[in-house]
Amino acid sequence: MTYCLGILTREGLVLGSDSRTNAGYDDVTVCRKMHQFVTPGERAFILLCSGSLSLSQSVLTLLDRDFQRGAGLAVAATMYDAARVVGEQVRHVSALDRRDLERDGYRYNVHIILGGQIRGEPHRLYLVYPQGNPLSAAEESPYLQIGESKYGRPILDRGISYDQTTLEEAAKYALISLDSTMRSNVTVGPPIDLAVYVADEFRITRHRRFGPLDPDLTAVRVQWEQTLRKGVRDLPTVRFGGE
Amino acid sequence: MTYCLGILTREGLVLGSDSRTNAGYDDVTVCRKMHQFVTPGERAFILLCSGSLSLSQSVLTLLDRDFQRGAGLAVAATMYDAARVVGEQVRHVSALDRRDLERDGYRYNVHIILGGQIRGEPHRLYLVYPQGNPLSAAEESPYLQIGESKYGRPILDRGISYDQTTLEEAAKYALISLDSTMRSNVTVGPPIDLAVYVADEFRITRHRRFGPLDPDLTAVRVQWEQTLRKGVRDLPTVRFGGE
Repeated sequence: MTYCLGILTREGLVLGSDSRTNAGYDDVTVCRKMHQFVTPGERAFILLCSGSLSLSQSVLTLLDRDFQRGAGLAVAATMYDAARVVGEQVRHVSALDRRDLERDGYRYNVHIILGGQIRGEPHRLYLVYPQGNPLSAAEESPYLQIGESKYGRPILDRGISYDQTTLEEAAKYALISLDSTMRSNVTVGPPIDLAVYVADEFRITRHRRFGPLDPDLTAVRVQWEQTLRKGVRDLPTVRFGGE
Repeated sequence: MTYCLGILTREGLVLGSDSRTNAGYDDVTVCRKMHQFVTPGERAFILLCSGSLSLSQSVLTLLDRDFQRGAGLAVAATMYDAARVVGEQVRHVSALDRRDLERDGYRYNVHIILGGQIRGEPHRLYLVYPQGNPLSAAEESPYLQIGESKYGRPILDRGISYDQTTLEEAAKYALISLDSTMRSNVTVGPPIDLAVYVADEFRITRHRRFGPLDPDLTAVRVQWEQTLRKGVRDLPTVRFGGE
């Protein structure tokens, strides 16, 4: 399983991912799910992947091959075009692998979050479905999730606002959302990759990988748990009538 | 959809349920999912149901018929026996309906949480599966959920302890868990039924139904959201290295 999320605010983007991948319960490994494509000063993209690792690897390999030779993401004119470039490779790999997967009862499963910015265009956040079609985040729905998304969603629903949430705060929300999911589902696990893209920077200057014993992550986890427990204690006592 | 939960602590039990039921997106109604069977001073049971309303209604009708004539839950010697009584009716309804449901592509889907106590026995909490087999909550895993369980789970994982959580606190955790789920999934909805069973009381003295505009529920929701937002602001700023 996997959990990745992207948050879109007026100031920029926050993207986060776990690193656990498993083929069955007894075949669990660590794998990076966050990838960057950057032409400094001109364009910067971050991709997050969930689904079959074999399929997302193929999509990334093809995207990288095109990028290195100055095609695909290297020349997309808008973020919408970039999302379409990703969708084209999702469809390309579908053409290569889907039939043989489905014959043996596997679904063609690859979801990709794409965040970034191209000079002259606003920063944007997209989700590309296994069918290749793109969905955009919006001011009213400023975050996107893929994989095991439910455990980490309530904190985002309560806190994230496109207009009011700062990038510093959004990074904390992403970290808590990821940590809560790891706590409730063992198939989502560390390290956590967290990246912040500041609008109009056209490079990724803030990235961090949190291992399972990272002292900063541990401090956040402990403080957050204390906050929740104290918050519950401080709520008014529930009043009951008899029955 | 449905969300119900039961919490087991040293002091007693807390049970909570939403009230939304839907047969398709355009057929949504309100339905009580919490039911009591009580012989005051001797035994008290609370049942919570998820799954097909038609099936859980049948199970409850058969349990009530037996209870009224002094059989079934009225005479079960232990909570384990009571869970087996519920499981027998789940299997009885399966024998009546499963074949015709599956012929038309429906699953036989009914999950039941059973909490309560019989004089001379400890209070216990069970989950009865659609196959009729019972699972018990334990000191190390002191809560059980049925239905749309993921959104409301992280707060329980962070806060509930069999030994240390008071019934007053457990009631607040249940309310927050239910409210967070309603916020993130529109197929889970009010009113919320919340009941507290105090060990060795052998009657249900604390029950409350919270409608969508209940001022106490609204106050809890507002205060909780403020707690979360302030809690995130107060976390240490995430430090990033460059990349």
